[in-house]
Amino acid sequence: MEIKTPTLIIDKGKALKNIQKMSDKAKKSKAELRPHFKTHFSAEIGNLFKAEGISKCTVSSVSMAKYFAAHGWTDITIAFPYNLLEVGDINALAGKINLNILLESEESLEHAQKNIKNPFGYFIKIDVGTHRTGIDPRNGSLIERLVKGASGKSAFIGFLAHAGHTYGCRDFESIKWIFDGSVKVLSELKNKFGGIISYGDTPSCSIMDDFSFADELRPGNFVFYDFMQHRIGSCSIDEIALCLASPVVAIHKERNEVVVYGGAVHLSKEMIKEKNIFGKEHSCYGKMVTLSGDGWETTVLGNVERLSQEHGIIKLSDEEIARVKVGDVIGILPVHSCLTADLQGHYLSTKGERIEKMTK
Amino acid sequence: MEIKTPTLIIDKGKALKNIQKMSDKAKKSKAELRPHFKTHFSAEIGNLFKAEGISKCTVSSVSMAKYFAAHGWTDITIAFPYNLLEVGDINALAGKINLNILLESEESLEHAQKNIKNPFGYFIKIDVGTHRTGIDPRNGSLIERLVKGASGKSAFIGFLAHAGHTYGCRDFESIKWIFDGSVKVLSELKNKFGGIISYGDTPSCSIMDDFSFADELRPGNFVFYDFMQHRIGSCSIDEIALCLASPVVAIHKERNEVVVYGGAVHLSKEMIKEKNIFGKEHSCYGKMVTLSGDGWETTVLGNVERLSQEHGIIKLSDEEIARVKVGDVIGILPVHSCLTADLQGHYLSTKGERIEKMTK
Repeated sequence: MEIKTPTLIIDKGKALKNIQKMSDKAKKSKAELRPHFKTHFSAEIGNLFKAEGISKCTVSSVSMAKYFAAHGWTDITIAFPYNLLEVGDINALAGKINLNILLESEESLEHAQKNIKNPFGYFIKIDVGTHRTGIDPRNGSLIERLVKGASGKSAFIGFLAHAGHTYGCRDFESIKWIFDGSVKVLSELKNKFGGIISYGDTPSCSIMDDFSFADELRPGNFVFYDFMQHRIGSCSIDEIALCLASPVVAIHKERNEVVVYGGAVHLSKEMIKEKNIFGKEHSCYGKMVTLSGDGWETTVLGNVERLSQEHGIIKLSDEEIARVKVGDVIGILPVHSCLTADLQGHYLSTKGERIEKMTK
Repeated sequence: MEIKTPTLIIDKGKALKNIQKMSDKAKKSKAELRPHFKTHFSAEIGNLFKAEGISKCTVSSVSMAKYFAAHGWTDITIAFPYNLLEVGDINALAGKINLNILLESEESLEHAQKNIKNPFGYFIKIDVGTHRTGIDPRNGSLIERLVKGASGKSAFIGFLAHAGHTYGCRDFESIKWIFDGSVKVLSELKNKFGGIISYGDTPSCSIMDDFSFADELRPGNFVFYDFMQHRIGSCSIDEIALCLASPVVAIHKERNEVVVYGGAVHLSKEMIKEKNIFGKEHSCYGKMVTLSGDGWETTVLGNVERLSQEHGIIKLSDEEIARVKVGDVIGILPVHSCLTADLQGHYLSTKGERIEKMTK
């Protein structure tokens, strides 16, 4: 395939394997997989899930729900706190598909019940320790009022949690600790109030095995994975299913640096702390690999250590930099696939086919 | 105006004042302003510059050059190292407009001369200390070969530098130190080899006054500014000409936090280190302000301390959080306007008019 500018390449074979692996895991625990589509934004990637028999999905915005509903998805949870300003669009969607929204206050429940005229479901968002959104599980009286508040067109579906604090973990034990705590909290709520348990963050869904406590799983990132997930322990490098192809535009051997066309507007400024080949700690915005005829090799050659709007600066050893020339196209494994995917107008498959996605 | 989702508001009045101020400064030094359009990506914002008599611009990619050429800009410098893979598009552009490219190696000059059939100009990129791209000014022999290499359709225009290391400065003295060093280096090159001096980074163009050493200035960010520029000392808060309107979707009084619909896909993950109102150091992704009928107030109420894909978490005092309710729309002054602007499909003016921009 001919690459001239920064282009996100998707290995559909790897993505499909990631989907199958997670789907098998969910089936083994008798939990339904309702994958989060905020990672890929693409009806075509959604079809890979459909082919695996998956018929429900999760999104993080009303606009994303509209996009996937328009592409044939008829059961969608918007896993983001109910934005009452978008009630018109939410009501219209609820008239077309099975729609679940996310609530964490009585004001929001009342607003939704008053203004959504079509039947809808709602999850109560539980804060299992991430402290981003959700109700403290010890606040039983509020939870009870929200459970019992269901009436008319609104149905209480269950409890939804995202243990996003696993993203800070770097070993099995700390993820297990978060996971076990979340299982306990959510199981107690289900025992007390009924409803289903919807659980999902890519690290715990990738690393843990027994999800029999949950009724559904909502991981998203696992379809592509990325270097942050590899660092957490969620995936091997060869399970990472996307790679930014980036043209080399300048070489500075005197400081072991290659400059690529591939910057913050292509990769995002998400970073992890790393040590480079010279032992120096720095921000890492991606990992350089070699592109091959049908994808990319999985040996990491160097780190993207600095990133400005269009430039990426990669540090390489003397040996590696000697192999690179201006006009080459190298690969970069992103730190965070969701944010990198968001920045693209479209993707290419490893066979060079254009893959459309939702745009802004 | 009716805001339902995260929306970037542009105060065209402030942007115009920022343009006029920089234009006046350039005129006083008899330097031509060739503003960098990588900040706004918008033909309509470009027209604000045209109204000030500015007829040349700078861009950071071939696609951006094509967009602005299609919108009537006939003299464009692509201030990014020559990407030889895009030579077809570059050649086509050079047939339509006055096009300058950026070179830093003999290989690139030879490639351009061999493959660009239409007349084009080239700048030699000089590294004045940022160590991102460019030639070490002490490498006189390479510079001489590039200057003297001009032939046929290729014209040597001059020396171009971007003192991007001013972004790490937080006081006048350190910016002046970088500026004085750059002036010396570039003036020596001009004296020796001829050509013009093209200089530009928003911090030094905003803070310094005498640019008589330069033939043209290329700042970009100044049209909108942002909180990073305010921190550097380039602008006052009331000169910041853009603000992300963000709906409030959840409130957590127990930890003084408001959750807004406005995340990494709207603001970017660019951040500065800050202390919050409780004295704790954290990453700051934006500054909360109050939206008003015709724009926003300039009192900062709190910081966006955490950011995930769609969520922003803002820390507020007891007093401030008491004023906020779910369904309100608050404003966020971005840390880095260029990356925030890149993430939008379009902008709104403070009067609610839609402002189109280049999309991906």
